Amino acid sequence: MDGKRYLITPGPTPVPPEVVAAESAPLHHHRSPDFRALLGETIERLKRIFETEHDVLLFTGSGTAAMESAVANLLSPGDRAVVASAGNFGERWLRLARAYGIEPVHVEHEWGERLDPGRIAAAAGEGETVAVYVTQSETSTGVVHDIEAIARAVAPTGALVVVDAVSSLGGVELATDAWGVDVAVAGSQKALMCPPGLAFASVSPRAWERAARATLPRHYLDWRVAADSQAKNDTAFTPAVTIIAALHRALELIEARGKAAIWAHNRRLARGAREGVKALGLALFGPDDETSAMVTAFLMPDGIDGQRCYGVLRDRHGIVLAGGQGKLRGRIMRIGHMGYMNEFDIVTALAGLELALAELGYTPPAAGAGAARAIEVFASP
Amino acid sequence: MDGKRYLITPGPTPVPPEVVAAESAPLHHHRSPDFRALLGETIERLKRIFETEHDVLLFTGSGTAAMESAVANLLSPGDRAVVASAGNFGERWLRLARAYGIEPVHVEHEWGERLDPGRIAAAAGEGETVAVYVTQSETSTGVVHDIEAIARAVAPTGALVVVDAVSSLGGVELATDAWGVDVAVAGSQKALMCPPGLAFASVSPRAWERAARATLPRHYLDWRVAADSQAKNDTAFTPAVTIIAALHRALELIEARGKAAIWAHNRRLARGAREGVKALGLALFGPDDETSAMVTAFLMPDGIDGQRCYGVLRDRHGIVLAGGQGKLRGRIMRIGHMGYMNEFDIVTALAGLELALAELGYTPPAAGAGAARAIEVFASP
Repeated sequence: MDGKRYLITPGPTPVPPEVVAAESAPLHHHRSPDFRALLGETIERLKRIFETEHDVLLFTGSGTAAMESAVANLLSPGDRAVVASAGNFGERWLRLARAYGIEPVHVEHEWGERLDPGRIAAAAGEGETVAVYVTQSETSTGVVHDIEAIARAVAPTGALVVVDAVSSLGGVELATDAWGVDVAVAGSQKALMCPPGLAFASVSPRAWERAARATLPRHYLDWRVAADSQAKNDTAFTPAVTIIAALHRALELIEARGKAAIWAHNRRLARGAREGVKALGLALFGPDDETSAMVTAFLMPDGIDGQRCYGVLRDRHGIVLAGGQGKLRGRIMRIGHMGYMNEFDIVTALAGLELALAELGYTPPAAGAGAARAIEVFASP
Repeated sequence: MDGKRYLITPGPTPVPPEVVAAESAPLHHHRSPDFRALLGETIERLKRIFETEHDVLLFTGSGTAAMESAVANLLSPGDRAVVASAGNFGERWLRLARAYGIEPVHVEHEWGERLDPGRIAAAAGEGETVAVYVTQSETSTGVVHDIEAIARAVAPTGALVVVDAVSSLGGVELATDAWGVDVAVAGSQKALMCPPGLAFASVSPRAWERAARATLPRHYLDWRVAADSQAKNDTAFTPAVTIIAALHRALELIEARGKAAIWAHNRRLARGAREGVKALGLALFGPDDETSAMVTAFLMPDGIDGQRCYGVLRDRHGIVLAGGQGKLRGRIMRIGHMGYMNEFDIVTALAGLELALAELGYTPPAAGAGAARAIEVFASP
């Protein structure tokens, strides 16, 4: 049927019907007791996903807004900050810091590499570093970085550890408190199975101490303003009430399934995607192991442009994967397997990919090879 | 029926079923051509509501985010700015400016007064003023200020005119270009009949000139970043796609009805609300004329606390009006009549108000007096 669409992207991800129903329910007034109760429950559920006993602050905005809050609330002019990047989203920390007049020490890695905890800790230790900014799931390359190791390595320097978990929260483990992550930021539209429009920031007591002294200007994204309101189960500014209602329901579904079960599910989908892609004769761009549980990135065959393949998939087959970003544009494609995704979405992605590649002149080793291999993987326990 | 709710507030306002359906439609990916087309149309429709030929920039955020963008994109440290206020939202401009280290010249009016164009222009003329910040509909008091007169008075000073139209856009006239308004900011959840989560800023060529030189830090709310993306029918950051789909549909409904017809409708509802409130023996807080078309504010009878009345209305009758804010808390209540509202919503508000006041010990001049008077008003052409 024309127009039937399959969103198999690193976000926004498909939203379960139960969550759509919650989003479409009659609007709550944001100052009403029923909404306040719903907001309070939502924050408590978020804390359990973040694995933190400390504050999780909610903002109406894109994930980038929460990232920006972690710059504006922690730094003051002249502060030393370290940004470690290995892809497009890691580099976003650079742009945010520079927008506020902070030139961070840049621990640059090749796109697709894994962040090196030793290099990051060394950079943090070379001066009095206020904060280290890293990425958990680098959506542009599919690599999930080892936040636990990075936080452990940075700890002796005393620098705050700030993690972009926008595309990973809920999809892979993030033990915020146990790992010593001071600030983690996330968004609603990835593994949390909600429409985009909400962003979150967890704040440790150490981060609060720094925020009390930080002098960069902020109001809409001011953690103090957000926390003062949240202490009363309220928000400082009219929030996206329908998306909060959706998130409340989505987190209920996530808790019913269980975090660990979801992480295992994502690893399983990722394994099927990796094996299927290889069976199509394509090379993986990211590491061929269990860590890249959110996004599978792979290189295009010689002579085939990834953006053209993306367009054929989308326009002829209704399948929306993701192309490459920045310097990887045209060279890679990406399958997202976070959120409301199952084995058959991976099979669909691989089937569509084969059809699109065929149209562009690429012949796989055998007809249906990618889907067949994924099915084989999924048939094993 | 328990739980049946009537949202008769100054925002969020009820969302029409057609708009809820658009919000619930399968999610668009924000980089897909169908979403880009929808975004482009939405911006064009917004421009017609703003009555501007210039840019209208869209942000995922509360209305306050767009207000903050008008501070961060226009001012530099040491700049002279003028804020004119006559209520809670006017004072928000002060807080935003101060958060960025700007101490504005404050043209303070009593809450409930109408902003005085002469005083504002005089303050703007006393020094080299970069921008004057005012409010169109002061939701905390129900007063709609005369932006045309303020802009005309300020024009000779050369200061930019920045208008908070968050709760007025689409409900009363805002002839952005014709009146010489440089920046108007608005939100999705008031007269535009959408859920909260989107904010807008119109930017005149003069405002762009200043924004190019302004040095206050910003990235998420940076107009240049937003405009660069919008030039390609794109957004810089993953936007609230479901609310944009809702807004696209809501603006279609608004255009089908016609702006002038909606303004007249709102004035008519406001007249019914004012007359009904007076027939209940209550005193209006705002002016008793055609200008207060968005919100009708009225004083509580002696000895009756507005917050208690608000609670009884809400908890016993499912009717959500608004109480007073800040220094007016407990003293006034407010009926919102913007957005998806009709005569019968006003009758319902007045009927509920009478029941709640009766429970709190207040007896109106005659049973059903408020509703009866509103029906009488609505019966006349």
